[in-house]
Amino acid sequence: MKKSVGKQALVYPTPVFLVGTYDEHGKANIMTAAWGGICSSEPLCIAVSVRPVRYTADAIIKRKSFTISLATKSIIKQADYAGIVSGRRVDKFSELGLHAERAEFVDAPFVQESPVIIECSLYKTIELGVHTQFIGEVQDVKINEEMLTADGKPDIEKISPAMFAPVAGLYYGLGECLGKGFSIGKEFLKKDQGLDNL
Amino acid sequence: MKKSVGKQALVYPTPVFLVGTYDEHGKANIMTAAWGGICSSEPLCIAVSVRPVRYTADAIIKRKSFTISLATKSIIKQADYAGIVSGRRVDKFSELGLHAERAEFVDAPFVQESPVIIECSLYKTIELGVHTQFIGEVQDVKINEEMLTADGKPDIEKISPAMFAPVAGLYYGLGECLGKGFSIGKEFLKKDQGLDNL
Repeated sequence: MKKSVGKQALVYPTPVFLVGTYDEHGKANIMTAAWGGICSSEPLCIAVSVRPVRYTADAIIKRKSFTISLATKSIIKQADYAGIVSGRRVDKFSELGLHAERAEFVDAPFVQESPVIIECSLYKTIELGVHTQFIGEVQDVKINEEMLTADGKPDIEKISPAMFAPVAGLYYGLGECLGKGFSIGKEFLKKDQGLDNL
Repeated sequence: MKKSVGKQALVYPTPVFLVGTYDEHGKANIMTAAWGGICSSEPLCIAVSVRPVRYTADAIIKRKSFTISLATKSIIKQADYAGIVSGRRVDKFSELGLHAERAEFVDAPFVQESPVIIECSLYKTIELGVHTQFIGEVQDVKINEEMLTADGKPDIEKISPAMFAPVAGLYYGLGECLGKGFSIGKEFLKKDQGLDNL
């Protein structure tokens, strides 16, 4: 039996993005964001929603750049901290013992300790009530070499990405592999039924 | 050592959304989408990106409504199928043995077999290259009663949401709990340092 719980953010999973920016003085900062995700394949774009009062919002607008460092199991406590204090008064990299590295293609820093980082230039800004949705065009992605499989694909189990469960308010790690995309559903295809060219 | 892999969608995790719509004849359809996520808290909005050529895109525009049924471990093969064939020529609910139920507050169907469903009215439409980002305002969320904890919170482990890992092209289940949000990061706070009112 389904029960209505009203307008609650029961959306699982959400990512745990560390949004990296430089402020007007060049200080590197990160902010944790779970409201976001890929929003276009070509150009490849990622959306991240940030409240306009956040220190990060100003920095994205001024530098037209941000990075996303994926939070992983190994840095999940650091990621949580980066969501509960403001870079306006704290140097989060220093407090957390994390290292800021300048991105190659955009004017923003990323977190060296994250195994997957995404460099974005600001593509579009959408006002949505209390949040501003910043859409970044991906300029480059970098991954720790040891997180690649022999055939050059990302090894998701080694990366060990963290995820967030809103309303429950809990972080989770990666579970078992459930199968291959664009593949495990084929058992429902009728004989002679091809795939659609989607 | 970090290695550049160019413009690839190495974003983990992404969700596995079953986007439910009625077509112009009232036929219920679902499409699987991993490009999406929460994009605003107030009004509570969810973004989902769909290519304009998709059957679902037309349906969202005409009915100004869609639902999101979360794909879970129990229906991951069905979710994969719903991403590789088009509702233009197949009745996916019938092929998959899933049941379509009319949403209460919007003009769209949801998947009864999913334990968490989200009813959305179309709030904004953003053109982003090859994708259209449909932003839905959440009108209601429904959850299977047995998936709630004693204190009325969603039991994430019972829900057992699926996630997708792009580029690797693999689905994963939920892993171990890594801790409580807005809490596990407090160990990095200096003595007497309060939280910011973010």
